[in-house]
Amino acid sequence: MVITKPSIPKGTRDFSPAEMVRRNYIFDTIKAVFALYGFMPIETPATENLSTLLGKYGDEGDKLLFKILNSGDFLTSAGAPLSANSDKASLQICEKGLRYDLTVPFARFVVQHQSEITLPFKRYQIQPVWRADRPQKGRYREFYQCDVDMVGSNSLVCEAELVQIVDEVFRRLDINVTLKINNRKVLAGIAEAIGAADHIVDVTVAIDKLEKIGLENVNAELQSKGLSDDAIAKLQPILLMKGDRDEKLASLSNILTNEVGQKGIEELRTLFAYIDALGLELKTELDLTLARGLNYYTGAIFEVKANDVEIGSITGGGRYDDLTGIFGLKGLSGVGISFGADRIYDVLTQLDKFPKQIAAQAKVLFANFGGDDEIYTMKVIAQFRKAGICCDLYPDAAKMKKQMAFADKQNMLFTAICGETERNAGQVTIKNMTTGEQNSLPVAEAISLVAKA
Amino acid sequence: MVITKPSIPKGTRDFSPAEMVRRNYIFDTIKAVFALYGFMPIETPATENLSTLLGKYGDEGDKLLFKILNSGDFLTSAGAPLSANSDKASLQICEKGLRYDLTVPFARFVVQHQSEITLPFKRYQIQPVWRADRPQKGRYREFYQCDVDMVGSNSLVCEAELVQIVDEVFRRLDINVTLKINNRKVLAGIAEAIGAADHIVDVTVAIDKLEKIGLENVNAELQSKGLSDDAIAKLQPILLMKGDRDEKLASLSNILTNEVGQKGIEELRTLFAYIDALGLELKTELDLTLARGLNYYTGAIFEVKANDVEIGSITGGGRYDDLTGIFGLKGLSGVGISFGADRIYDVLTQLDKFPKQIAAQAKVLFANFGGDDEIYTMKVIAQFRKAGICCDLYPDAAKMKKQMAFADKQNMLFTAICGETERNAGQVTIKNMTTGEQNSLPVAEAISLVAKA
Repeated sequence: MVITKPSIPKGTRDFSPAEMVRRNYIFDTIKAVFALYGFMPIETPATENLSTLLGKYGDEGDKLLFKILNSGDFLTSAGAPLSANSDKASLQICEKGLRYDLTVPFARFVVQHQSEITLPFKRYQIQPVWRADRPQKGRYREFYQCDVDMVGSNSLVCEAELVQIVDEVFRRLDINVTLKINNRKVLAGIAEAIGAADHIVDVTVAIDKLEKIGLENVNAELQSKGLSDDAIAKLQPILLMKGDRDEKLASLSNILTNEVGQKGIEELRTLFAYIDALGLELKTELDLTLARGLNYYTGAIFEVKANDVEIGSITGGGRYDDLTGIFGLKGLSGVGISFGADRIYDVLTQLDKFPKQIAAQAKVLFANFGGDDEIYTMKVIAQFRKAGICCDLYPDAAKMKKQMAFADKQNMLFTAICGETERNAGQVTIKNMTTGEQNSLPVAEAISLVAKA
Repeated sequence: MVITKPSIPKGTRDFSPAEMVRRNYIFDTIKAVFALYGFMPIETPATENLSTLLGKYGDEGDKLLFKILNSGDFLTSAGAPLSANSDKASLQICEKGLRYDLTVPFARFVVQHQSEITLPFKRYQIQPVWRADRPQKGRYREFYQCDVDMVGSNSLVCEAELVQIVDEVFRRLDINVTLKINNRKVLAGIAEAIGAADHIVDVTVAIDKLEKIGLENVNAELQSKGLSDDAIAKLQPILLMKGDRDEKLASLSNILTNEVGQKGIEELRTLFAYIDALGLELKTELDLTLARGLNYYTGAIFEVKANDVEIGSITGGGRYDDLTGIFGLKGLSGVGISFGADRIYDVLTQLDKFPKQIAAQAKVLFANFGGDDEIYTMKVIAQFRKAGICCDLYPDAAKMKKQMAFADKQNMLFTAICGETERNAGQVTIKNMTTGEQNSLPVAEAISLVAKA
């Protein structure tokens, strides 16, 4: 047999026990909050039909889909000779692909199971997704998404609950964040007001750069992007807008006299009113430059930034009015956010905020002396485990030095010895590996001692 | 845009909230026991290099691997024109495949990370695997495996711990099971003793059929499989062996005078001695017909049968002496078992043994009256959630009938009303949906009432 030097595909990762417990800490925290807000878990298959995935993420997204080769004699099943064009050929020999995000599978799920679902439907989903992106620092080809969405209601109460969830998750994780909020209708209103509906992105980018490069440079850039002098002139009051959140909304309300803009302002005011009334600890701000996923969102837009770490957005989302329409179910509005587990992991690592008590290893290592001592040790361990204490038995009657070195490497809190002396006395000798303190105790007392630690 | 009728690839499944909570109940139970025994979680990527996967599962297994088409212009990257043979062509255009089980990725993990791992290494892994099997009832193309393995020790203490884990998991799940135990060395010893080393499978199948078809038919079948008269004659004492476990082991010990057979008997005796000493509730039995994965196991073989449901094995495993050898790390012995989550799910469903208290939905639905009542309701809910109670707010101020129908469909335990009366009194009206009992209470009292339910 040829020996294979082991490696994994680029852009993918193995997770060690130490990484797993930290990742699970993040997932468990997020899940607990989702459940508290009445969201329910679902899972969808890793593979979806290509017909479900293609055309949903733009041309760039289509290129980033991992396709799965049809099983069996795929060349014969292709029917016609393969196209010389790889894109076309791929569709002759692949019917399935790996899921690219959790939003499209969710929309597919809602439509496919509409007769089983009660609307409004609140679901969360925590599963990996795959993208054939060029791997780089912090960007992987397989990564988890943690999505929470509510479909079947237009109410801004849904947005308010998502804001509360952001507040609660990051309070529990002890990460100081700012939630930036915008509204797609306001952006559409601005573009309409200045007569430049095709230039929403250019306009938001310009607003974003104002502080850095100044008004004149912004106007020059807008001109170079093809905005008319008239549009640029009309944009000036928005660029020059000053004040706090409510003052900005008041100014916008004077400027954006179109229907879509007014609707967007009203939605923002309602949402901020909920936030103010609830008295959240979370820092929120109106950010008119926020424009993520323009092709897709139709109302509120959210993005969360960590305040104490230089890193991109760690959570984001928004409202989409017709996501299920692509699968034939019209008129179902939804809103959702996605927590970026990998970036949250990086933030917690940089801030050293993972709780000390989460650990991958057992609490007590029982030494192994073989023979009758081994049987006695196994019986004692069974009592410890019955009390819910995670224990490990060294499997071989190896030299004590080797066994203790193992306990050290594994960061065991305690080691336990059940030798002949202990066996005859019905005791166990427990050593606290932090303090070095050592006691021979009846088993029940030893269990209480360890349980308290 | 073309509207896609939504569907998922055959052999795959969506999991609804109701299914998810039941599946998570199984996974959480298994994980908790694994942790209690000092096993630590790892995860590996869904995709592995084909060089890692190919040749590890036999020719049949190779055919069942899902291969992932190389990204980009895969035809040009293939270098040479594609072979007209699909198997060969697939290797020109695919470098990666979906993982087929968790054992080979685990072996790859151990070798790849050997410098970071402390031996003996105890890991568990709960992740989906993919097989291009023909889908049928109870057989899926994507399904979860729950594997627990220990590598780096030959000690039968490891086998004993796995038996304890089986005992504990099925005790917690309240499934009445029998653990069948055999040893590959005993099977090898039998085959050697009768001079039919090539016919281990035929011999075990024959032993298995003895009760059903009788001795004469068994001997006829062995003859038809090509066993010599001499071999069949030598097998008779084993076929005619009577008695309980220890009597059978004693008989075997007289018959199997070869080294491998004696070693196997000794291993079985040691393992059963551990089991007897520990006084497990679990029913265990020596089953000489158990022969799963012969090509792969080298010592103990395990299989768990549910006693009260007609279904195949729900858990299985064994010892393998050189799994990491295929990746260049020789001499590392391991033993592990795999819990079949899908079959355990079916058993729990058939026996109606899922705990009643596990539920997908929130506990309380708060009605929505809009306006100031809505704000008051949101503040009251925040207090409930602070107390850890999962609550749901109906997002729209819809007709009460519609909101209550929703509460009914979602099996809410309570509904709560915070209207004008309640708001003015600082109260909430709580209705127990089971008893119909309804009370208007101060918020703190309502929280205690619901928390107790």
